[in-house]
Amino acid sequence: METLKAYNIDGLVVIGGDGSIKASYELYKEYGLPIINVPASIDNDIFGTDYTIGFDTAVNTALEAIDKIRDTATSHERVFVVEVMGRNNGFIALDVGLTGGAEAIIIPEIPFNLDAVVQKIRYGQQRGKSSFIIIVAEGAAKGEEVAEYLSKRINIDVRVSLLGHMQRGGSPTALSRELACKLGARAAQLLHEGKEALVTGIISDKIVETPTEEVVRRKKKIDVTAYKLANMLAT
Amino acid sequence: METLKAYNIDGLVVIGGDGSIKASYELYKEYGLPIINVPASIDNDIFGTDYTIGFDTAVNTALEAIDKIRDTATSHERVFVVEVMGRNNGFIALDVGLTGGAEAIIIPEIPFNLDAVVQKIRYGQQRGKSSFIIIVAEGAAKGEEVAEYLSKRINIDVRVSLLGHMQRGGSPTALSRELACKLGARAAQLLHEGKEALVTGIISDKIVETPTEEVVRRKKKIDVTAYKLANMLAT
Amino acid sequence: METLKAYNIDGLVVIGGDGSIKASYELYKEYGLPIINVPASIDNDIFGTDYTIGFDTAVNTALEAIDKIRDTATSHERVFVVEVMGRNNGFIALDVGLTGGAEAIIIPEIPFNLDAVVQKIRYGQQRGKSSFIIIVAEGAAKGEEVAEYLSKRINIDVRVSLLGHMQRGGSPTALSRELACKLGARAAQLLHEGKEALVTGIISDKIVETPTEEVVRRKKKIDVTAYKLANMLAT
Amino acid sequence: METLKAYNIDGLVVIGGDGSIKASYELYKEYGLPIINVPASIDNDIFGTDYTIGFDTAVNTALEAIDKIRDTATSHERVFVVEVMGRNNGFIALDVGLTGGAEAIIIPEIPFNLDAVVQKIRYGQQRGKSSFIIIVAEGAAKGEEVAEYLSKRINIDVRVSLLGHMQRGGSPTALSRELACKLGARAAQLLHEGKEALVTGIISDKIVETPTEEVVRRKKKIDVTAYKLANMLAT
Repeated sequence: METLKAYNIDGLVVIGGDGSIKASYELYKEYGLPIINVPASIDNDIFGTDYTIGFDTAVNTALEAIDKIRDTATSHERVFVVEVMGRNNGFIALDVGLTGGAEAIIIPEIPFNLDAVVQKIRYGQQRGKSSFIIIVAEGAAKGEEVAEYLSKRINIDVRVSLLGHMQRGGSPTALSRELACKLGARAAQLLHEGKEALVTGIISDKIVETPTEEVVRRKKKIDVTAYKLANMLAT
Repeated sequence: METLKAYNIDGLVVIGGDGSIKASYELYKEYGLPIINVPASIDNDIFGTDYTIGFDTAVNTALEAIDKIRDTATSHERVFVVEVMGRNNGFIALDVGLTGGAEAIIIPEIPFNLDAVVQKIRYGQQRGKSSFIIIVAEGAAKGEEVAEYLSKRINIDVRVSLLGHMQRGGSPTALSRELACKLGARAAQLLHEGKEALVTGIISDKIVETPTEEVVRRKKKIDVTAYKLANMLAT
Repeated sequence: METLKAYNIDGLVVIGGDGSIKASYELYKEYGLPIINVPASIDNDIFGTDYTIGFDTAVNTALEAIDKIRDTATSHERVFVVEVMGRNNGFIALDVGLTGGAEAIIIPEIPFNLDAVVQKIRYGQQRGKSSFIIIVAEGAAKGEEVAEYLSKRINIDVRVSLLGHMQRGGSPTALSRELACKLGARAAQLLHEGKEALVTGIISDKIVETPTEEVVRRKKKIDVTAYKLANMLAT
Repeated sequence: METLKAYNIDGLVVIGGDGSIKASYELYKEYGLPIINVPASIDNDIFGTDYTIGFDTAVNTALEAIDKIRDTATSHERVFVVEVMGRNNGFIALDVGLTGGAEAIIIPEIPFNLDAVVQKIRYGQQRGKSSFIIIVAEGAAKGEEVAEYLSKRINIDVRVSLLGHMQRGGSPTALSRELACKLGARAAQLLHEGKEALVTGIISDKIVETPTEEVVRRKKKIDVTAYKLANMLAT
């Protein structure tokens, strides 16, 4: 607050994820400083917005890696376990799994059973499938452990990729930039209108804002329909 | 119809753009064959859906080209005119212009004035800007002609890129694939439910369907708010 | 020279292309300042090195564009004319044409005959080929003019791409960076050894140096064997 | 051999790595079938060629991942351990480490000391460096184990990426394709000339061939100069 005063700053647009939103909300509560948040996070785990800035970028980065793994998968009989980011949620895993055609998606929000994955692989083998990609959100299980479990129960080679922090980098996709343009413009406008503690977001393709208190308190839900669709397409 | 009968096909899911939708609608009207359309086109010019399959892919391809041009732009004092696809509309140009930070966007839906572009460049030069990217939809003007007009009126080098058919290729982005999964699933379901002449689509992030007759008849409008936002951000 | 003296700089490593080498050689001749050049140019037109820093990057950028054009080419019957950079030489065009499987490559170093290209396309059509990619170095012809010539003589659609300055940008490839590491290290070493007017380079995979005087005077030749190989593979 | 006879095949061009070369050499020794090998492997571990087809592609794929990790590395104080492919050799690790600016490279050919890596990180921290990338060839150590060792001895966060099979996929780079064109053409020519058991290759930028017997028997050496250069540049 002293630094802000020294620079005559009487309001902030804070761009960041979960941590930034919580920290800036403390600042607001303590000092009454008007703060508008722009949700930027690869994890997409912010209540009050369908998408966060950076999420589409991270999903496309992981998807490109999956596509390259698939190139090998189709020429060797193998199971590939790919661990993607998502400490407490499966947003990246679900989108990557659906769009990458994964044979199974393991996320923290939905209870999973590795024996069911074993069954799925065996059933696939019977129908002539020779390769399988299993996406694991880091918050649900360790890729190495999933691989070890599977390799003891099926008779084909199991390999692991742990994509790690490459998912946090790279040049932003069009969608991430479009969202940044729109949410940033709205944030500036809200501050200008005298608003104090709001988080901007996009819901059903419309720019909206939600009280920061609500965003901090509530947890965003995964899209169960997309999960079921992924399962259906991969059978 | 003879071929379809020979193979006992009593319904079709037709994936394609403007032309495919019109052709399949003729087939429906003539023979009563149940047809569900899945809008796939880089041009995004289909009524009844916010996005077509392939549009996000084309925008990201063009954006990557713009990013590379920008690398040069920041090291030389220059104007770059980039012609993108869009025979009758500016959907690609607008999205690429907004997300690529273009200094001007020329599209068929909104009257343009090249002298205003000249003014914008001169005004930018006065404020120390050294490079300018002008996006032109092919349906609005020829990139070469825009470049010629500008180069006669300003004292810096003007270069042209004509991205052409590279915008139609490449591996689909996550968003294009997600849309394909969702619209494809809905199309199969609609046919199964006995529906006959509908076009699937996504509106405000929800999967919907529109009578093919309406899709054929009506014209999709450009997002004027996004155009204004791009103009504001690039000033 | 005054600026250099003011900063106590008694030698320079100059990184750049043709123009930088000539300019720095003038500086050397006039003032005797020790200068070692590191050839960096997308054009690869520097005598004394098989490759310049940036050439492999530009070739891969153009190649990715060609690959995307090829995606369309295989689904439509068409001729695609792609103009690539190379004001006075065909280095990029030749490498892109060979590695992109172009049906014809038009470069300034080798006399070309557009009627022979017409014959090649017709002969391809007879054997069932449905698409053709023609690479044109900007120094040999204008892509638009080649397209116009062809479209008057063959009965399939001809489209043009003018890749332009996107070929100058983007993140460098491994090969471009490796060359930068090796030539840069050698340049520093040469200056340290008291050498005065040399251009570093890589010849037959070995790091070498050539007197700047010779580099300025001589012209690098195109690899005719590669040109013949490309022609043979594309027939 | 029966299959080959059934199809009247009296010679083979075998494209592949270590395993394919050994297997085809057995076929040659047993039946006298003329076989020319084209070395294709991401591992680059074939004697008789400076580069194998696919090596440049794998290096660029890994490098793009490193670049994305570096984006995060520069915004957080962290050590990133990246495990790359190379079961018995460090060719990929060395090239990726050199061109990606890694702070340390751990390969099987050169004895390593993790305490020296710890020292390097501490020394970097003292000079203000805030992030460190350590490349580990899978044949030298497990990335997870290196990370565990380091995290016990330094006071900054250590993260792991295990790139895995994404390194085997993707569209080939220009260099990989150029090599494929040149080695493939030579292989066909050699077979046509009546040669029997040779492996084609590129040495010092010239297309050459080596007796298969010698290729099977000898082991390709790592480029120690490049290793030293990487170390020097990263200090």
